[in-house]
Amino acid sequence: MGEAAIDGRLMDGRAARLACRMGQVPGTTAGLAPGFVQGNLVILPREDAADFMRFAQANPKPCPIIGVSDVGSPHIPALGADLDIRTDIPGYRVWRDGECIAETGDVAEFWRDDLVSFVIGCSYSFEEALVEDGIEIRHITENKKVPMFRTSIATTPAGRFHGPLVVSMRPLKPADAIRAVQITSRYPAVHGAPVHLGLPSQIGIRDINAPDYGDAVTVRDDELPVFWACGVTPQAALAASKPPFAITHAPGSMLVTDLKNRQYAVI
Amino acid sequence: MGEAAIDGRLMDGRAARLACRMGQVPGTTAGLAPGFVQGNLVILPREDAADFMRFAQANPKPCPIIGVSDVGSPHIPALGADLDIRTDIPGYRVWRDGECIAETGDVAEFWRDDLVSFVIGCSYSFEEALVEDGIEIRHITENKKVPMFRTSIATTPAGRFHGPLVVSMRPLKPADAIRAVQITSRYPAVHGAPVHLGLPSQIGIRDINAPDYGDAVTVRDDELPVFWACGVTPQAALAASKPPFAITHAPGSMLVTDLKNRQYAVI
Repeated sequence: MGEAAIDGRLMDGRAARLACRMGQVPGTTAGLAPGFVQGNLVILPREDAADFMRFAQANPKPCPIIGVSDVGSPHIPALGADLDIRTDIPGYRVWRDGECIAETGDVAEFWRDDLVSFVIGCSYSFEEALVEDGIEIRHITENKKVPMFRTSIATTPAGRFHGPLVVSMRPLKPADAIRAVQITSRYPAVHGAPVHLGLPSQIGIRDINAPDYGDAVTVRDDELPVFWACGVTPQAALAASKPPFAITHAPGSMLVTDLKNRQYAVI
Repeated sequence: MGEAAIDGRLMDGRAARLACRMGQVPGTTAGLAPGFVQGNLVILPREDAADFMRFAQANPKPCPIIGVSDVGSPHIPALGADLDIRTDIPGYRVWRDGECIAETGDVAEFWRDDLVSFVIGCSYSFEEALVEDGIEIRHITENKKVPMFRTSIATTPAGRFHGPLVVSMRPLKPADAIRAVQITSRYPAVHGAPVHLGLPSQIGIRDINAPDYGDAVTVRDDELPVFWACGVTPQAALAASKPPFAITHAPGSMLVTDLKNRQYAVI
């Protein structure tokens, strides 16, 4: 099956995972398996996993945990019966002492029997709800990665883990920003309502056109930048906290699960 | 009973109405009978009442009707068993051909047997929810009337009634603005979520320090102006549409009802 055969719009979560596993998804999982939850990944050795779980619990907006593996297991049945966390993501980052030492599509050589995998909710879930409501999402329109910024807002530390809150930014007209607050408030398990809007300098963002992760997008004069807590926050925490070893997803290369986005709507 | 005996914080809706009826409430009803719904008032002759009701139905954010009288009746039992719309408001405005010709505490001399009274939800209801959440409301802190602005947004016309949307403005820090969207979204019958925030020039507001009604309040550099649809919109419609006769409340002098604000929370 060649690349031309991949039509992510027709896939369910399992088909998308299988395509990733077979190396048929180059790079981003954006647009794959509409309606299915995608997640950010953090894998840590058992000795750091409890601290990380406390860190996530203390910072639920950027780090909403939607699945955790048993120690040493590459499976998370609650997210997909066949799921294998070692193979089902198109791109991984491998970290040593807070440095990203490799970006790879295959983590077999790095796998260890003491690893615990955390899957964290992702903004793709609420973006789907925004698009369904008729709101334009600029990075989708411009075919870019969402712009993300490290802020001056500190996360709540837990054990060895600490670091800045990372936010994603979507420019919206004021009335759409209000509607977006309403819509995303329905999805507390996938980052929920924005954390800030309109005044980026107040959260330590100096240049809205120079994101720390992802791509810059057009922000028009009649739009406000709206900021949501972002699942890349754990990667900023790895860089700040320097645990000996970790694996994460590469930004944009998410884990596609069998869960439905709509299951996360609270009302 | 002298003015010193009036402690609005201890009143229920009926006691507040009786105090108004006895002339013991000078001017504003702000702060009277916490927890009880207050309303904006529009009284029109039967010949214009049907058009106005259609106007309100077409513009539910500024004109959410919470009670209507029978033709010629000064009573609205659904809002209070003893309620007398002719006496229970501290200040009225009398309108002829779109001009306010009198501001008075007593409309007995203007009463007619063909009048229909409309009571329209008021932002006091959602302000109470904001304050309970710990959000500072600037005009309350500064002991002023809320600043209100005629916007460049037209209401949907109905029959003879048309005119600009009037908005009230509260300056809020961005995180509080987001929280305020969530809280006020729960109160669709009392203006609901904001209609705009952050970019006042886009809705025709040239000077945030020069409101068209009410008082200017301090807007700090770290705050966004947040705008809600306002129950003074019907008064702008009277001025624009020039019906032969109407009575309204004077801004800030509301009708206190027996309903509870919390009854209007949808979730």
